[in-house]
Amino acid sequence: MDDYLTADRPTFVTHLECSMTGEHYPADTLHNLSKVGRPLLVRYDLSAVGEALSRDTLSARDTDLWRWRELLPVRRAENIVSLGEIETPLIPVPKSGGERVLVKDEGRLPTGSFKARGLVMAVAMAKELGVRRIAMPTNGNAGAALAAYAARCGIETIVFCPEDTPEVNVREIAAQGSRVWRVNGLIDDCGAIVAKGAAEGRWFDFSTLKEPYRIEGKKTMGLELAAQLGWRLPDAIFYPTGGGTGLIGMWKAFDELEALGWIGSKRPRMYAVQASGCAPIVRAFEAGEEHAERWEDAHTVAAGIRVPRAVGDFLILRAVRESGGKALAVGDPAILKAVDDCARRDGLLLCPEGGATLAAYRQALRDGEVDADEEVVLFNCATGLKYPLPPASATLDRHQVIDFEAL
Amino acid sequence: MDDYLTADRPTFVTHLECSMTGEHYPADTLHNLSKVGRPLLVRYDLSAVGEALSRDTLSARDTDLWRWRELLPVRRAENIVSLGEIETPLIPVPKSGGERVLVKDEGRLPTGSFKARGLVMAVAMAKELGVRRIAMPTNGNAGAALAAYAARCGIETIVFCPEDTPEVNVREIAAQGSRVWRVNGLIDDCGAIVAKGAAEGRWFDFSTLKEPYRIEGKKTMGLELAAQLGWRLPDAIFYPTGGGTGLIGMWKAFDELEALGWIGSKRPRMYAVQASGCAPIVRAFEAGEEHAERWEDAHTVAAGIRVPRAVGDFLILRAVRESGGKALAVGDPAILKAVDDCARRDGLLLCPEGGATLAAYRQALRDGEVDADEEVVLFNCATGLKYPLPPASATLDRHQVIDFEAL
Ligand SMILES: Cc1ncc(COP(=O)(O)O)c(C=O)c1O
Ligand SMILES: Cc1ncc(COP(=O)(O)O)c(C=O)c1O
Repeated sequence: MDDYLTADRPTFVTHLECSMTGEHYPADTLHNLSKVGRPLLVRYDLSAVGEALSRDTLSARDTDLWRWRELLPVRRAENIVSLGEIETPLIPVPKSGGERVLVKDEGRLPTGSFKARGLVMAVAMAKELGVRRIAMPTNGNAGAALAAYAARCGIETIVFCPEDTPEVNVREIAAQGSRVWRVNGLIDDCGAIVAKGAAEGRWFDFSTLKEPYRIEGKKTMGLELAAQLGWRLPDAIFYPTGGGTGLIGMWKAFDELEALGWIGSKRPRMYAVQASGCAPIVRAFEAGEEHAERWEDAHTVAAGIRVPRAVGDFLILRAVRESGGKALAVGDPAILKAVDDCARRDGLLLCPEGGATLAAYRQALRDGEVDADEEVVLFNCATGLKYPLPPASATLDRHQVIDFEAL
Repeated sequence: MDDYLTADRPTFVTHLECSMTGEHYPADTLHNLSKVGRPLLVRYDLSAVGEALSRDTLSARDTDLWRWRELLPVRRAENIVSLGEIETPLIPVPKSGGERVLVKDEGRLPTGSFKARGLVMAVAMAKELGVRRIAMPTNGNAGAALAAYAARCGIETIVFCPEDTPEVNVREIAAQGSRVWRVNGLIDDCGAIVAKGAAEGRWFDFSTLKEPYRIEGKKTMGLELAAQLGWRLPDAIFYPTGGGTGLIGMWKAFDELEALGWIGSKRPRMYAVQASGCAPIVRAFEAGEEHAERWEDAHTVAAGIRVPRAVGDFLILRAVRESGGKALAVGDPAILKAVDDCARRDGLLLCPEGGATLAAYRQALRDGEVDADEEVVLFNCATGLKYPLPPASATLDRHQVIDFEAL
């Protein structure tokens, strides 16, 4: 099995490029942000990829994330630390969503969230480039994925999360061998601690978009979607947006697929979904700004999108605008209602962030922003099992006569 | 996508058969146990399957559970209520297990456990046969899977679980629209309530092996394993055994695959793994009995295998013996140690039942029962996220000077 996880093979990375200035940086050395403090993007020799790989070759491969290896940065297969990054299913939610609404269920990935896509790539590259110690801020899921992959290849990790991070996330991170600290603040406060330690040379900073490879892993969501839909894209995508890595990654993936001639120039409208209690991207979108200011007093039940400030703000806003989409905010009650409806009527337990996309879809439908006959994909980025569910207990005494009518 | 989930197609079921007496029963009508109170097995016209299906045809299909549709009982595709039953990955655990030890990670299935395999099939058949109301006893995971699939197709469900079932399971079941009751007893006490209500005609009894189709769903674990390993089987399989549906199902699958000429007569040694605090099958195995007596005062952290009495006991024991395997018991401390080791060293968070298989493997290795160079598959039947993890919290005050050396 899985020969491609051990066999060496050519890769097609040519260089890295500043997402703001376009300045080039060499591949095969360690990088965080570009000189102007913005994310670096990985560039490939796509015409060489096109010669090496066809859609038919791809169809014959196992469907997991490594199927896309020619479009990924890992050069030496021995550096891949896999935990089974399967292709996630598209699940119709006809009753709570609509006839043509599909949920991409990312909770099936290792450690129960799509953070595995980004972190499997970033950890493989860290291993390839000789990193021995990593620190990262997290709202929970990213930390769990980092801990798992790093444990597997013996890289030391330290993770910082907001103090109100659900206990299950913190425990999961610790169980997978990471040192985890709660911090009295939000994710960017945790990020500041990581940055300080990195500046002192204590560890490598793995914050989202501050190292170039998580985005390459996340991009596979876009690649998969195209392949799953038969080399078409849906009319609209609703993405729960915190740091926005996934949205930026998918947007990049679509361009790469078009350059390969595998899809046309049509793009889905990208909807960046945030919570009303933390909506910096929505505010910037509506104000027509290129960058987003920090959102003060951020709060929402959807912890994964409680990100007051995103270093890739302009990339998110650019993709949303170019696509003809929007940035949308939904309130916590609508989020919880969507989670409840989807579980009760379609049997699918979303995470709150996934619930936010369903709530935003419903709102967009009401507002005439999407039509009921459009094909729509909602991203459920983590398993609903990681989140507190409403209490439910009634006890029955088997030694008593049971009143069956009342059950 | 997924045309095969909506397109009609021939099925190959000929009849049902009592697993004890061999007596035939008609397909296409509702059944619980056979007249002698034993499980019914579904039989197929395997030579017709062989004409309709080749291994090549199969390889070209999507890899999910419905890939095996010719070997499954659902006649009308419209009755399939799918939540994305993907093929689960095989994950090496070299550090906590060994070089040739693979974990089949069933936690990736809908509702986070392999119960989805059985219940997707049983619910589809219930829908096909017109059932409107279902009751079931559960240790947690089966109830969650039933609730999800039944919610999706509007069948009413009532679920009974032992009173110490983890809160997350109970909440998950309720969130997915089922009525759930805790009972002061164990799973067979819950089963007695279900049986009583069924006898009064209040609902259809969905207890494991008491309806014929869960086993057909579980059998896909064996089918997948053969396909994933390139039409070979491993040297040994370690299976956490409660009701034993999965073990019985795989054993049946191997026979069907051999009848199709897709594998040879070589079988893995089947190890039925139980917890020392509830090991009725182990006791019967060691005593050379054909049936197992009820285990009194059952207790173990691995709730899924806390099954004091199994209606398919003789089928489990028969498969284990024919295979040259054994029934093995492991203590809770060894289970918890295995879970901890696997997470910390291989980055994979097992459920306690999965931990039991790793603990049993280690014990078998020490005892010379398996060799280190044998290929072994351990079943991790649910995501580790459903279970209580050890506490882990340390808090950092970001307003203070941080002592980085001490982190
Ligand atoms: C479940 C979930 N959804 C969405 C997000 C936001 O992802 P991104 O950083 O790509 O915007 C996160 C990030 O923590 C998350 O955990
Ligand atoms: C996680 C887990 N493992 C194993 C089992 C036992 O499965 P079986 O009934 O097939 O023996 C169960 C059943 O509840 C379970 O939930």
